[in-house]
Amino acid sequence: MRILDIQAIEDIAIGAAVMGTGGGGDPYVGKLMAIQAIEEFGPIKLLDADEIPEDALVVPTAMMGAPTVLVEKVPNGEEVIGSFDALKEYLGKKVFATMPIEAGGVNSMIPLALAARLGLPVIDSDGMGRAFPELQMVTFHLHNVSATPMMLSDEKGNSLLLNTINNVWTERLARNATVEMGGSVMLAIYPMSGRQVKESGIHGIITLTEKIGRAIREAKEHHQEPISTVLSVVGGFELFRGKVVSISRKTDGGFVRGESKFEGVEQYKGHTLTLNFQNENLVAQTETEILATAPDLIAVLDQETALPITTEGLRYGARGVVIGIPCNDQWRTAKGIATAGPRYFGYDLDYIPVEERIKRNGKGGRE
Amino acid sequence: MRILDIQAIEDIAIGAAVMGTGGGGDPYVGKLMAIQAIEEFGPIKLLDADEIPEDALVVPTAMMGAPTVLVEKVPNGEEVIGSFDALKEYLGKKVFATMPIEAGGVNSMIPLALAARLGLPVIDSDGMGRAFPELQMVTFHLHNVSATPMMLSDEKGNSLLLNTINNVWTERLARNATVEMGGSVMLAIYPMSGRQVKESGIHGIITLTEKIGRAIREAKEHHQEPISTVLSVVGGFELFRGKVVSISRKTDGGFVRGESKFEGVEQYKGHTLTLNFQNENLVAQTETEILATAPDLIAVLDQETALPITTEGLRYGARGVVIGIPCNDQWRTAKGIATAGPRYFGYDLDYIPVEERIKRNGKGGRE
Repeated sequence: MRILDIQAIEDIAIGAAVMGTGGGGDPYVGKLMAIQAIEEFGPIKLLDADEIPEDALVVPTAMMGAPTVLVEKVPNGEEVIGSFDALKEYLGKKVFATMPIEAGGVNSMIPLALAARLGLPVIDSDGMGRAFPELQMVTFHLHNVSATPMMLSDEKGNSLLLNTINNVWTERLARNATVEMGGSVMLAIYPMSGRQVKESGIHGIITLTEKIGRAIREAKEHHQEPISTVLSVVGGFELFRGKVVSISRKTDGGFVRGESKFEGVEQYKGHTLTLNFQNENLVAQTETEILATAPDLIAVLDQETALPITTEGLRYGARGVVIGIPCNDQWRTAKGIATAGPRYFGYDLDYIPVEERIKRNGKGGRE
Repeated sequence: MRILDIQAIEDIAIGAAVMGTGGGGDPYVGKLMAIQAIEEFGPIKLLDADEIPEDALVVPTAMMGAPTVLVEKVPNGEEVIGSFDALKEYLGKKVFATMPIEAGGVNSMIPLALAARLGLPVIDSDGMGRAFPELQMVTFHLHNVSATPMMLSDEKGNSLLLNTINNVWTERLARNATVEMGGSVMLAIYPMSGRQVKESGIHGIITLTEKIGRAIREAKEHHQEPISTVLSVVGGFELFRGKVVSISRKTDGGFVRGESKFEGVEQYKGHTLTLNFQNENLVAQTETEILATAPDLIAVLDQETALPITTEGLRYGARGVVIGIPCNDQWRTAKGIATAGPRYFGYDLDYIPVEERIKRNGKGGRE
């Protein structure tokens, strides 16, 4: 057990934007919620998964919706409490702790804001080790944990309790309701026993995102070259450096889909990189090579500061370094690849781990 | 209290098709469910509203969806029990009885099938005194009864529990989920106290639909002219007689919208009648006159048998008598007209009671 203070929240928010791989929503809004909650209610207890009793009830919390909308509709902390309390009451059991379903983006912060307000501990685990656009894209799902009973609520006071036959139906019905309710809602989802969290979670992930954020902050303070610092913390690879020459985005069916193009600089001069995204970056490719695909992480960092740039934050002419980070091994199983690999997202590509692609392509990718 | 046997169900189903005013789904499917349930579990107790204890819990049950889909997706009685039991459990109270929210169409039969299976009584009241296409179009709504907590479930095993800030949001979110779930679902909705049922219901409605059905059956047995028999039972008016010359239908957003045209015969020769519908018939007009509008009832009866013809059942060349029936007085209040009058459905027409229109138009409309 350790305590998360405001500096920790600041660092986690930066790290979470890296893990957000372009999507997941800008953690800034969530960070403000979490910091305000800590200032009002005191710091947050962070527990390791192995500190949870086997039969304790853990209820993850999250926001659902297209990041564009998340940015426009600033939530108040009460919303999270609404769906959380409603599910708790429905389950009729004491809740031991909350946790994120995704460590990337704004959903890294929602459980922290809730935990501070309710004086609940947060588990240092998630179900992605990154951000993903759909509710079944969690390692809990790979271990056959049901997303339901799940509570979904909007800021107007409408709420839905879902019980579904599988997690794909949960995604389908919840996505639909989210669009109808105005584009973003609060979730209490994947209620789990301590044992299930231990078996199916990705552990130490909040600590890792904090390390990333701290490394970026300290690199600036100590005038170090920040990109390589980040790469060494995450075990990632540089894929490309370039200037943004085009961005196209479309919010549609509760997702933001599109692509951004980078014109190479330095050793990448003469090449163009395209990033395809559905909320998160899914495929990074040049005119000749696939450099990385989901479920591996593809992030864009500011070349000077290594601060992550979300898809929403990309501006024409911005200079970015595109990096690839190997995903958690749970995503590299057959079910993991079927759930969140390139073919699920409609790309006719086999999943090849980013580190192998780097070797094959035989260039770029200095670690 | 009285007992409904299979003959009663047969008669109610016919009467419910008249009250369905073209929509509400063909009660035939529901009738089979109800008769099968009675054969398996015995007859059904029908209670008058004044036999309900003030504080008893009454949970109405219904099907939701476009009639076209209802016909294609034959339900099994278990579905109704699913959402009913789930809501009962959520409310944590003993349920005294069920009842229809609409006496017209298939929803006249769903509560009967449920009641027989569970050995529950049915209240001889509904919330429409007819059929209407949207969930807030009930006299319960006119008396500020909330549609939620409401349970919605599909035949696959998915279920939603809704809690909404008002009944228009209930309609919006439930309609949306219904479309996503395949076009028709089962509801347990408008949970009410005995007092609320007494205050807000339309009473004696199942008995009235049974009378209509019996009158049609007996007119045939005794070779009487059946149309005038029906008109006298319901206090209705003949609006038109003609042959179907065109029908256009579109299933869209969970509704069936369209219009049917009748070429006049006998004293209506040389005139054309148009019926506009959204599931139910909403406006009956000739090229020169409005004959009737919602919330009054507009039904089409077979000229020979007086058997009601639903919008789905209308065939080119069929000979029908179009009748108008004054709606319950609760619909003739300001809130009633705002909720289910012609302007709500997008017609730039004032609501004028059918009996007044008859006088003004000064023709047709023999009672």
